[in-house]
Formats: sequence, C-alpha cells, structure tokens
Amino acid sequence: MAKNAIVGQSGGPTAVINASLAGVFQACQKRGATRVYGMCNGVQGLLEERYVDLNEKLPGTMEVELLKRTPSSYLGSCRYKLPDPAKDPAVYEKLFAILKKLDIGYFFYIGGNDSMDTICKLADYAETVGSDIRFMGVPKTIDNDLMVTDHTPGYGSAAKYISIVMKELVRDATVYGTKYVTIVEIMGRNAGWLTAAAALSRASDCEGVDMICLPEVPFHVDRFIEKVARMQKDSASIVIAVSEGIKLPDGRYVCELSNDAHFVDAFGHQSLTGTSRYLANQVAMNLDTKTRSIELSTLQRCAAHMASRTDITEAYQVGGAAAKAAFEGHTGEMIALKRISNDPYQCTTEPHDVHEVANLEKKVPLEWVNDDFTDMKQEFLDYARPLVQAELSPLFIDGLPRHLVL
Amino acid sequence: MAKNAIVGQSGGPTAVINASLAGVFQACQKRGATRVYGMCNGVQGLLEERYVDLNEKLPGTMEVELLKRTPSSYLGSCRYKLPDPAKDPAVYEKLFAILKKLDIGYFFYIGGNDSMDTICKLADYAETVGSDIRFMGVPKTIDNDLMVTDHTPGYGSAAKYISIVMKELVRDATVYGTKYVTIVEIMGRNAGWLTAAAALSRASDCEGVDMICLPEVPFHVDRFIEKVARMQKDSASIVIAVSEGIKLPDGRYVCELSNDAHFVDAFGHQSLTGTSRYLANQVAMNLDTKTRSIELSTLQRCAAHMASRTDITEAYQVGGAAAKAAFEGHTGEMIALKRISNDPYQCTTEPHDVHEVANLEKKVPLEWVNDDFTDMKQEFLDYARPLVQAELSPLFIDGLPRHLVL
Repeated sequence: MAKNAIVGQSGGPTAVINASLAGVFQACQKRGATRVYGMCNGVQGLLEERYVDLNEKLPGTMEVELLKRTPSSYLGSCRYKLPDPAKDPAVYEKLFAILKKLDIGYFFYIGGNDSMDTICKLADYAETVGSDIRFMGVPKTIDNDLMVTDHTPGYGSAAKYISIVMKELVRDATVYGTKYVTIVEIMGRNAGWLTAAAALSRASDCEGVDMICLPEVPFHVDRFIEKVARMQKDSASIVIAVSEGIKLPDGRYVCELSNDAHFVDAFGHQSLTGTSRYLANQVAMNLDTKTRSIELSTLQRCAAHMASRTDITEAYQVGGAAAKAAFEGHTGEMIALKRISNDPYQCTTEPHDVHEVANLEKKVPLEWVNDDFTDMKQEFLDYARPLVQAELSPLFIDGLPRHLVL
Repeated sequence: MAKNAIVGQSGGPTAVINASLAGVFQACQKRGATRVYGMCNGVQGLLEERYVDLNEKLPGTMEVELLKRTPSSYLGSCRYKLPDPAKDPAVYEKLFAILKKLDIGYFFYIGGNDSMDTICKLADYAETVGSDIRFMGVPKTIDNDLMVTDHTPGYGSAAKYISIVMKELVRDATVYGTKYVTIVEIMGRNAGWLTAAAALSRASDCEGVDMICLPEVPFHVDRFIEKVARMQKDSASIVIAVSEGIKLPDGRYVCELSNDAHFVDAFGHQSLTGTSRYLANQVAMNLDTKTRSIELSTLQRCAAHMASRTDITEAYQVGGAAAKAAFEGHTGEMIALKRISNDPYQCTTEPHDVHEVANLEKKVPLEWVNDDFTDMKQEFLDYARPLVQAELSPLFIDGLPRHLVL
C-alpha cells in the first residue's frame, strides 16, 4: 500500500527553490505516492497542521512550468529550529502524530544548513522511535555555503543576476568619464561565494569590477581606501563588490562601525546592512571623488526573471533525486551535486549523510583569491562559469513574468 | 554635396538611449550623410574635439543590434549646460568652428529637458549667425517628465524593470507569513512616473504593492505610519513604493530628516538618498514589525537585460524621425511621441518646437491618483501598460548579455 509524501521549504527564498519542489512532486507522483502534501511555512506550519494537497494545486504540466519560473518559496517558508529531542520530546511527538495522521512515508525538506539540522533531528528521532518514515534533505541556498555538495541550487541564478547587474553597473558608472566610486553590497555573512560572482562580469566587452572584498579575508578600512586611491589614478570609475559580511581583523562586522540598528533572528543571525554605505562615506570623506552605494538586497535572491537555466535544471534534479533515494529506502541524507567535469560541464547527484552538512558552512578557498585579495583567480571562474549558463524564458503576460501563487 | 551628421548623448543613461543612437545613425546613412560622427561625452567632449566616426565603429548590422541591447550611453554622456550666448559667445564660436571643420549639416542631441536646452540655444544661435546646420532633439529619460511627448523613450524599460522587481519583491516578502514592511525607493526627484509604475505589478497572480508615494503629493510622516499600521491589520506583509523625491508640506525632502542622508563630503559632493531607509526606521520605531529598505538606485536605469521591446522600438523610431526631419529642413525641434490609441496601442512621432520642452517638467496628473493618495487609478494603468509590453532578448555569451563598448 503506497504511502503519502510531504515536502516543505525552509530558510531564505531563492529564484529556483520552487523548481526543487516541482522535482520532488513529479518524482513522488511517478514513484507512486498516493498524495503529495506541501507544508505551509515549513515545519512551523506543519506543527499547526497547515498544509496543502499538491495534487490539487498542481493538476497539470502548465502549473508545474509556472512553478519552476516562480521566485521565492511557493509554500511559504520559516526560520524555525527544532528543539533538542532529549529536552523537548513533545514537539516531536506532535509532529510524528501529524505525519501518521497524513499517512506520510516520505518527508522532504528543501533548505540550507539550518534546514538540514531539521532533517538530521527528525531522522535521528525516527530511528529512536522505530518510525519507517524516510527523511531527505534537498539543498537550497543562494549562499552556496553547504558542505559536501559541489554547489547549491539557487547559487547559479543569484550569481548570474549579480554578474549581469555588475556588468550593467560598470557601463552606467563610466558614462560621464568623471571620478566615481561605486560600492555594491552583496549578500553573504561568512562565505563570499555571491560576492565572488561579481568576477564573472569581466569579458572582452566589460572591464569588470575593480575590487572584490570577501568575508573570508580580514578587512582593513584604511588599506581599502588606499587601494581605491591607487586604482583611481588609472581609471576614473571604480566599481567594487563587497560582501555584507566583511569583518575587521578583530572580528567585528564592518557595518557595525556605522550607527544603524542591528536585528537578530531566532538563529542568532544579525541583520547586516550598511556596509557599502559606510565604505562609500569613508571614501567620500577621504578622497576627492563622487561615490555611490548600492545594496542588491533581496533583489539578488528573487530575480527569477533572469535565472540560470542550468540552476533551474539542477534544482529540479536534486528534488527528483531526493524522491528516488527516499523511495529506495534512504533516510537522514541530503542530495549533493557532484561535478564530473568543468568543460564540457557535467554534474550528477549523490546522497550524503545529512550529519556532514547540518549547521556547517563552506567558505571560498583562499587559494582562489589573488595575492592582493582584490580579485578571483581563474580556478574560481572555471568553477562558477558553468553555473550561470543559459536561460529559461519567463512566460510574459501583459509585459510581466507570470508566477504561480498558492 | 552631402553634409556630415553628428550625434551626442547627454544626461542620465537609460536602457534604450543607444537604440535612439542606432536610429539616428541608420537614418542619416540612408538619407545620404557622408559621415556620421558621435560626440564623446556630449557637447562637453565635442568642445574638446573628442568624437568618433560611427561609420567605422558600426560597420554592420551585428554591431547595430548589439548597440540596441547595450545600456548606458555608448558615446558617454555629460551634464554640461551651455552658457547664455549673449554673455559668453566664445563657447558658441568655438563649437560652430568645430562643426564647420567637420562639415556638419545635421546635429542631433539625445537627452532630457536639460539637453533640449542645448538644442534650443544652438538652434537660436545658428539663426542669429545665419548657419544652416539643423539642430534636432531626440527625447530620452527614464523620468518621463518631458512636455509635449506622450511619454519618453527610456521610461517604458525602467517601468517594466520596476514592475517586475516589485512583483518579485512582493513574492519574497510574503514568504515567512510574518509582519514585514518593505519600503522600496524609486528614482524621480519631482515627477512620480517611475514610482507610479509599481502599480503595474498588480495582477491575478500578484497582490501588488500596498502603497505608492509620489513626489506630487505632500507627504506626512505620521499619517504614513498610521496608514501602514492600518494596512498591516489586514495583511502581514506590506510593500510600499516611495519616490526618492517625496517632500514634506513645507517643501523639504523627506530624506533631509535623516541624519546622514543630506551628506556633503569635504569636496562639496552632495548625496540625497535615504528616503526609504528613514521611513523604514520610523516604521520600525513606531510599529511592532520587521522592516526592510531597498533602493533600486541606478539598477533601474541600466537594466537592459529586461528592457521593453516597445520602448526599444520607439527609441529607435524617434532617432530615425529626428534624422528625417533634419534632412527635410527642420531645426530647433524635438521629436515627440504621439499616442493614437491605447488598445490596440498605436503611437506615431511628430516634431515640436524645442522651446516647448526645454527646462520644463511634466508631472503625474493628480486625477490619476486615488482619493487616498496611495494607489494609481485605471487611467494610469491604461497609459503605462502598453509601454512595458514585449521583450528584446539579449545576445547571451557565456551566460551574460553581450554589450557594445566604444
């Protein structure tokens, strides 16, 4: 007797997280799941018994195609952290009772390292109580900071958006031929993968960005200003990509030097903004130049209108591979992307124990940064370039991309 | 004996200003101009005898197609205002000597109301000295604030970009189902056309933005916060589009209320941004909600990757129409777009005396704003919707749109 499946989305949205949802849904259907449920707002919503029947919401291929082109999390998301099961078993008892009521055999969670902590705890708990529900993680994050996997679905599209925008900003900033320093703030608290993607803007038709500042490299405000001054002797317009998470040698975030308020979420993550504004003000105060500060903010994680087709395809694949693994008996694992070769680009999937992923962060290797800590080396470009290839055209209605909404 | 033509770009860049350049260039060629020159950095560069031969730079249709898809000003731009010819005739004597040396018969200037002041002064001066050079203006500005013309090339693409981004941001902001106020700052010092375009995001798949604040409507910070509080009772996520130029009833810009917005550096460079940041902080201090401030900044004027094909086509047409008019003997005029009908959308061009355009600003009619001053009426949607229709696919190389650079 076939069981039902349930799938949830967790953590920050991406442009392609719904392609993974589509992959889980279609693969579960093909493998004979009676029903596929979607948790509303992840595990947090499930605990309130908020869920939808995806068989009803996605009756045909047209809905699935629209879903793949819809940014943000179709099912809604959460930043809920499961408690320690030894200290608070009640939450687990409640959750497993709901799963039993829904006759769930397969549980999928699409998310980043915090979400993999959820899969980890649920799979471990299932083992202790002898439940045969399979718990599988589907990787997702624009940050590209998950261990084990070559890269994360969501990163390619954000990297494509960032490199296109940087290319357009470089054009814009040179237009008057006057002295001009543009500082663009890009997401990434501890890992600089997104900021590094700005390096992809360099090509025969674009001089590229002039400096890249990663959170992996300790930041010195005075040396930064000196570098800008030196660079501006050769070129009037300087465009710089900085990570929101760049830190001083003493470990403080650069944005803490400015006066703005900081918020802390349930996971203790600080809300980091104001880095580029602070640096632009410092440059303006010290050098004779016009400055502009630009924060890409959430634009970079929801720009489905310019997603990478490679990324959408892989997001769909990891969803499908998670369903395949679960139906074949795997549990407590996350599907990783495994690169076979760069050129021609080939990539496959493989399941990994989710303990190798949960709560860990993968940083940009410093060997991929140049000696001056201002640019990415060829190794990074070879790594990242395949991930931004190709496009999936939105369905435009009345001039705007059409989305699927719950 | 055929004369030569010269064309310049002036003022802020747009996504389609180069399509107008392509239109001028190809029409001048077809009408028999021996050479078509391009001024580097507008009149300012021409006064330094910096120009290029466009026949050499644009040898084939491939270059012209790339040019149409390249954002920012291919020739470079300037913000140079010609002096009063009565007080400072030397500049005019120098400029006309350069034009004579280049054997120029036709002079084109692509720009906004300041640039039309240049055409105005040059055409008037030509008349006083008996020069037969024809001076024609080609409209361009994302701000859509030029008189006489139904709309300006550049506006449609910026409006398309803004409405797409707002739609994506609305999706992103609803993802946690938690209380969240997103305030998006959009360009427009005195005219709210771009901010109004946020209204286009509403559709059967998008609830649209919850409030639109135009510079045409006096702004009250306290009433704004009250409105947000009221709206948030019905909907957790509120997304608001505010113009950078919103002003208090006493005429001060709202951003002047913040501490660092009216920032002037040691060299006198002034920055006037921070409206959305100030308002987000005010909301956070007064209401129990998370807030986010997003500035679209220069992204909205250089997003060629998502330009409106209608806009590109019209930008090309006004360039061609300017050349036609000049070769037929017109001077001291700007080509305006004249709308024939909304549905089906039809639009033609006609020349207008540039005195009707120079230095004037067209505001959003208040009859197009709802009684609560928070949304646009159907009349605006009917006006703006045709301008964002259709796309022109970039030529993607290695995952990024290819541009043409000088």
